[in-house]
Amino acid sequence: MSSLESLPIRDDLRGKTPYGAPQKTVPVALNVNENTHPIPEVVARDIVTALASAVLGANRYPDREFSALRDSLAGYLGHGLSRDNIWAANGSNEVLQQALQAFGGPGRTLLGFAPTYSMYSLLASGTGTTWLAAERDAEYELSPATAAAAVAKAQPDIVFLCSPNNPTGTPLALDTIKAVYDATDGIVVVDEAYVEFAPHDIPSALTLLPGRERLLVSRTMSKAFAFAGIRVGYLAADPAVTDALRLVRLPYHLSALTQAAATAALAHSDAMLAMVDDIRVQRDRITAGLTQLGFHAYRSHSNFVLFGGVENPHALFEALLERGILIRDIGLPGQLRVTAGTEAETTAFLDAMAAIGSKP
Amino acid sequence: MSSLESLPIRDDLRGKTPYGAPQKTVPVALNVNENTHPIPEVVARDIVTALASAVLGANRYPDREFSALRDSLAGYLGHGLSRDNIWAANGSNEVLQQALQAFGGPGRTLLGFAPTYSMYSLLASGTGTTWLAAERDAEYELSPATAAAAVAKAQPDIVFLCSPNNPTGTPLALDTIKAVYDATDGIVVVDEAYVEFAPHDIPSALTLLPGRERLLVSRTMSKAFAFAGIRVGYLAADPAVTDALRLVRLPYHLSALTQAAATAALAHSDAMLAMVDDIRVQRDRITAGLTQLGFHAYRSHSNFVLFGGVENPHALFEALLERGILIRDIGLPGQLRVTAGTEAETTAFLDAMAAIGSKP
Repeated sequence: MSSLESLPIRDDLRGKTPYGAPQKTVPVALNVNENTHPIPEVVARDIVTALASAVLGANRYPDREFSALRDSLAGYLGHGLSRDNIWAANGSNEVLQQALQAFGGPGRTLLGFAPTYSMYSLLASGTGTTWLAAERDAEYELSPATAAAAVAKAQPDIVFLCSPNNPTGTPLALDTIKAVYDATDGIVVVDEAYVEFAPHDIPSALTLLPGRERLLVSRTMSKAFAFAGIRVGYLAADPAVTDALRLVRLPYHLSALTQAAATAALAHSDAMLAMVDDIRVQRDRITAGLTQLGFHAYRSHSNFVLFGGVENPHALFEALLERGILIRDIGLPGQLRVTAGTEAETTAFLDAMAAIGSKP
Repeated sequence: MSSLESLPIRDDLRGKTPYGAPQKTVPVALNVNENTHPIPEVVARDIVTALASAVLGANRYPDREFSALRDSLAGYLGHGLSRDNIWAANGSNEVLQQALQAFGGPGRTLLGFAPTYSMYSLLASGTGTTWLAAERDAEYELSPATAAAAVAKAQPDIVFLCSPNNPTGTPLALDTIKAVYDATDGIVVVDEAYVEFAPHDIPSALTLLPGRERLLVSRTMSKAFAFAGIRVGYLAADPAVTDALRLVRLPYHLSALTQAAATAALAHSDAMLAMVDDIRVQRDRITAGLTQLGFHAYRSHSNFVLFGGVENPHALFEALLERGILIRDIGLPGQLRVTAGTEAETTAFLDAMAAIGSKP
């Protein structure tokens, strides 16, 4: 084997290591914000039937326009959206990458509010876009004034707003999105990967789409739909935006299996979203439990909780792992992140935290 | 709806139209070099069983390292290759795109020998790599001297060699690959998408891998494995190359469904490749039939035939389409391309050609 250094790789990749949360097999995995509930059996059965049908025609290229899937996604989102407003790809990472390929690239800039989803800066780097990190307010919140001032100052070509924000869980008010949109002539992407876990009375950024042709609202089926393994991200926007994405997507980028599985699951969105209510309850249990134990839990509208006040994050991470519980050290001093699992997983986590006590 | 022109898309995308062969529903589709044989029933059944199992765990992210699939691909390829030599992605287009992201990009160049696979220049454009087109010898063949001279003159960072070449079908000798490799310090990718359709005694570029750390041999399951709808491309190379690709791949880029379906199919490679022998026979029937009708069929080691001597390609294309037969006008003057289908499809094509006669 040769070494990576001896190959003519791009200069900006030299010395880098690949993105990757550890993939460990543990009894209670609460580290990557998965939906820990399996797909309900009745839905799984319909998905397998749809997959069997897709396999029979798999010698042919898939529908390049994934029209049935776009119809189903539009129906799920509502808000008067139709097929022409919808785009999808293999995970929201690919959706966001395509947005950067179309609207970013060399000589252009992407602004985000740190700490935020760690893939944003990696996607910028992968597409030659310059990454700019602006700051948040106290408690990782983001006010309209703070956000608009940062955008007015940096004048980025693209802004990514994560709502609710990962890894902090903090919500984002529509007023902040409006203020950012008005402060730029560029593209504004609201990443609503976790939005289904927000309280029911919180409006989605989808309500802001009419009249805002530069606004893109991205979603994923990985979390609320328990589809992390199947890789379906999507977005809603003006039809002109989806035309722009057609210029950069690889032809036939969505397999016939992906299209069939996602379309079948969306026909059961009520059953899939029933899990979300339970996860919300577990998230609130985590927040209450951690607060009671003396930690500082940040406000969360997502399926995870970031908590501070941890004297030795590494020691606490390891003490939990010894008990078969995997959470995430996302590199923020004195803080750790935990995913809300099933009721039993959440109890296991809270019991372990209480047992470990102030030891680490 | 706004117009695409009013959006802040990248300057080099302005005025472009998306790649795309027409997707029409016709009785005999011989236009995009698909394997027109469905996956054999016994294999399809195993694939569906594997998919059903994958759906049960689909709430979790897939194996980011797709280890089982890489083991299966290494076993299929042979030549002493192991998991560490193998990379895969959603179609060979994505494999090639990742190679350009790692080794190409702004300020770097990609050389190919036109006419060749039309995605190469689009992938170059999408990654900011400059596309350089060199010429072929007579009959679209490519000798070691011609290829090496073009590489020595252009000094590209990357060379793509399509073997056998699409859209011409023409084979590529190992001597040409060796000459290109020796003429450059850059990356050399041999795209063997159609190699399974070559005569049995023609060696693969895989035999050249030992000692050549800059050589990448890409393949696809779309053609020989009748997997176009499932999107599985892959490559074999030095393990350092796969490490470089890890730096640019999106995490979890291969879904659990893709991994399960491909692994299940590779366990039946003998059954899958049985179709290939039949397709070879049909390809040779097309070559003989077209020659008899007075057309010039280029030498083909693939599952399609390029033929010249067509007075009016557009008229012939339309006359075939009227008879329910879709072939491909790839824009070469006086030439058309047809995929070798099943025996019945091939007969339908040849009968239609004879019936149309010299009319168009």
